[in-house]
Amino acid sequence: MENEMTMDVIVQTILELLKQKKYSKARDEILKNNSVDIAEIIEEVIEELGIEKAIVLFRTLPKDVSAEVFAYLPIDDQLDIINGINDREIQHIIDELDFDDMIDVLEELPANLVDKILEKSTKEERKLINTFLNYPETSAGSLMTPDYISLRRDMTVAEAMAYIKKEGMDRETVYTCYVKDAGRKLVGIVSLRNLVISDDNMKVESLMHEDMIYVHVLDDQEDVSDIFKKYGFLAIPVVDNEQRLVGIITVDDILDVIDEETTEDFQKMAGMAVSTEEYLDMSVWHHVKNRVPWLFVLMCSYIITGSIIRNFEAMLSQVIVLVAYMPMLMGTGGNSGSQSATLVIRGMALGDVELRDVGKVLWKELRVSFIIGVVLSALNFARVCWLDGEGPLIALTVCGAMLVIVMAAKTIGSMLPMGAKKLGIDPALMASPMIASLTDMVSVCTYFALATIILGI
Amino acid sequence: MENEMTMDVIVQTILELLKQKKYSKARDEILKNNSVDIAEIIEEVIEELGIEKAIVLFRTLPKDVSAEVFAYLPIDDQLDIINGINDREIQHIIDELDFDDMIDVLEELPANLVDKILEKSTKEERKLINTFLNYPETSAGSLMTPDYISLRRDMTVAEAMAYIKKEGMDRETVYTCYVKDAGRKLVGIVSLRNLVISDDNMKVESLMHEDMIYVHVLDDQEDVSDIFKKYGFLAIPVVDNEQRLVGIITVDDILDVIDEETTEDFQKMAGMAVSTEEYLDMSVWHHVKNRVPWLFVLMCSYIITGSIIRNFEAMLSQVIVLVAYMPMLMGTGGNSGSQSATLVIRGMALGDVELRDVGKVLWKELRVSFIIGVVLSALNFARVCWLDGEGPLIALTVCGAMLVIVMAAKTIGSMLPMGAKKLGIDPALMASPMIASLTDMVSVCTYFALATIILGI
Repeated sequence: MENEMTMDVIVQTILELLKQKKYSKARDEILKNNSVDIAEIIEEVIEELGIEKAIVLFRTLPKDVSAEVFAYLPIDDQLDIINGINDREIQHIIDELDFDDMIDVLEELPANLVDKILEKSTKEERKLINTFLNYPETSAGSLMTPDYISLRRDMTVAEAMAYIKKEGMDRETVYTCYVKDAGRKLVGIVSLRNLVISDDNMKVESLMHEDMIYVHVLDDQEDVSDIFKKYGFLAIPVVDNEQRLVGIITVDDILDVIDEETTEDFQKMAGMAVSTEEYLDMSVWHHVKNRVPWLFVLMCSYIITGSIIRNFEAMLSQVIVLVAYMPMLMGTGGNSGSQSATLVIRGMALGDVELRDVGKVLWKELRVSFIIGVVLSALNFARVCWLDGEGPLIALTVCGAMLVIVMAAKTIGSMLPMGAKKLGIDPALMASPMIASLTDMVSVCTYFALATIILGI
Repeated sequence: MENEMTMDVIVQTILELLKQKKYSKARDEILKNNSVDIAEIIEEVIEELGIEKAIVLFRTLPKDVSAEVFAYLPIDDQLDIINGINDREIQHIIDELDFDDMIDVLEELPANLVDKILEKSTKEERKLINTFLNYPETSAGSLMTPDYISLRRDMTVAEAMAYIKKEGMDRETVYTCYVKDAGRKLVGIVSLRNLVISDDNMKVESLMHEDMIYVHVLDDQEDVSDIFKKYGFLAIPVVDNEQRLVGIITVDDILDVIDEETTEDFQKMAGMAVSTEEYLDMSVWHHVKNRVPWLFVLMCSYIITGSIIRNFEAMLSQVIVLVAYMPMLMGTGGNSGSQSATLVIRGMALGDVELRDVGKVLWKELRVSFIIGVVLSALNFARVCWLDGEGPLIALTVCGAMLVIVMAAKTIGSMLPMGAKKLGIDPALMASPMIASLTDMVSVCTYFALATIILGI
């Protein structure tokens, strides 16, 4: 909290200096921060004063800082800056970026600009970059970096340490080293920790783990992040079809993947198309396009609910008071169902609930929903009789319906996501909106059928 | 996927061997796996064959493996195992555990057992353990470990490396080293990478970063995980009120925190009390207790909706067909509101949407909801007239209500979470169930009021 307060003050100071065109003062002020925070300040400048001022400020940064800051900016801002600086400056930034950050930028640039940048690379670099550009967006390949320490099994610890010292890698990629055979196949991993604490003349092969866990270049990023969560790794090797080591994925990139996947789940569970763009950056049309389809589908499902009600119109017009309890029954049904659906969907995502547990889940939900249904029905009976002054038959109808609806909603809410998973559909799609539509049908059916029986109309 | 298949086969083999009481064969089979997977297999054994068999298997494991496996088990299984083994075995496991894992276990053990274990520790260890046991459950203090490398600023790189080699720490905690002054105050950090690639006679103080980011021992774990996400750290130092370094938090523990916090958000957004217990492990009563309160509160909110409807009973009984469109209008309102609420809640959680953006959000939602409202109304007009064969006045009522309801729902859905945050209430509580209850009120009000005007009843 304190941190954020200070940040706000810094941002305001810099915005003020820029408005007064005191650029060198603004630069001095911004350089007191680390690269992550400088990127955040530049984002604010773009938002508040526009891209031109931000580019002026960006250009005053020392060359080594500017590339690092650039890497931390969101992709939109990166593109805006690229459009505002000259080719030489672009080339400089691209050269300074870590390989995986460079690939992210190149993926978004127009083809002619990419070609211009690639012209200046060596043939091998071009080949490597092109390979990386072709991995699907959510694959392990798109997350990995080819910057890693690769050792030979016959090296001694002293040789390995000398090699690492010579390579002098950037960043955290150095903490796990990879041992490859002559065919570039991955044969083992050894941690820098192990090298540091071992005797100089020990062989790498005696220190390395051979039963390492790795992922394939086309594996989905969600599976990769599950492996990180399970084993607590700092980095994981990525291999191709021939088991050759092609890159590594580090845990800092996985933190972003987890956020992205969670956002997707939230969006699906609220009945929306998935988008990783930031809320405010998305255009009105894009928002509309993401939200209308599910709303429309769900709206159509109410055609069935509507025609059920029409079938009971004659009865309803005789006991119009029944209408007053409809929203409560439907609402409580929807809420009950969402609770169960959310628990089951989340349980499956975390691996706590498996498909084979379907019997256990059903049995648990039946008991839970029976108790909840009885409690809510009893409270309602009191309300309908005393608060609303209706007769016991109306109260019985409402409360009987409540019990059935809660039980049906919780059964639907828990079973639908499991059924979806069984069929290979993402369970997150079977969340609140879908469950609410279905339970609404069940609710009106149950309610009016019970009314017909109990009230004898 | 392949991985999981193999795992299933291994588990089945071991279960079969245990059923046939071939314990040493089962041990040989289980020892082919790494500790994380062994823990998973033991979990399965507990679930399928009961704790007794699992303890027999657990006891056959070599001492160094058993402590590591123990650390990866869920807390319930840990307690069951502790209850089934003797004091000497318990002592052994506790001694072998990493400090932070040991604290997690001790927190859950009954006091007399903790005392017995602490008896055998030195006075200093006891004091340290007691301090750690007193940190609140979701604080930075409860996540940290006191196992870290601490250096002095006047050490040379060679001295520092020799010291690290001598200490020979477990795990990843070695990759960032902490420089403290005489008063144990944190003065800088230096990465192992930097030590490895620097000349032996350079001083630590010339390599260390002094503007490091740290957290306070009582900071909330969610704030800590936000810092990890922002900066991509592998570890972060934790200080007390006097700025003295008391421990570090490593990124692998943050992955668990992120999962926990996400689960809490999902639960809150579905109108439930927060629980970190696994779905199947939670008792029926616990499930009921977590779900009933919100269902009850929301049910009560429908008393208002009910009385609005009662006010319009006379009109309704004249045009009973209006009832058939109620579920659709309420459902679509609820769904529209949830979409906006989810986007805004998630946007705020990720820092994309700030409180000061309230005007931008409102303006965006108004435009988005107007377009969506018009689209859905137009489609509905067609349906009511052609499909249902109702007159244009009924169609106009339904479609006018649809437009107003969608716009109101999206405004409520986006503004309520922001208002909650402003008031210091968790925005996640203002999600689908709450929004649906509110929009239902707005929906019936709007619908019947419009009906009165348009149909002139």
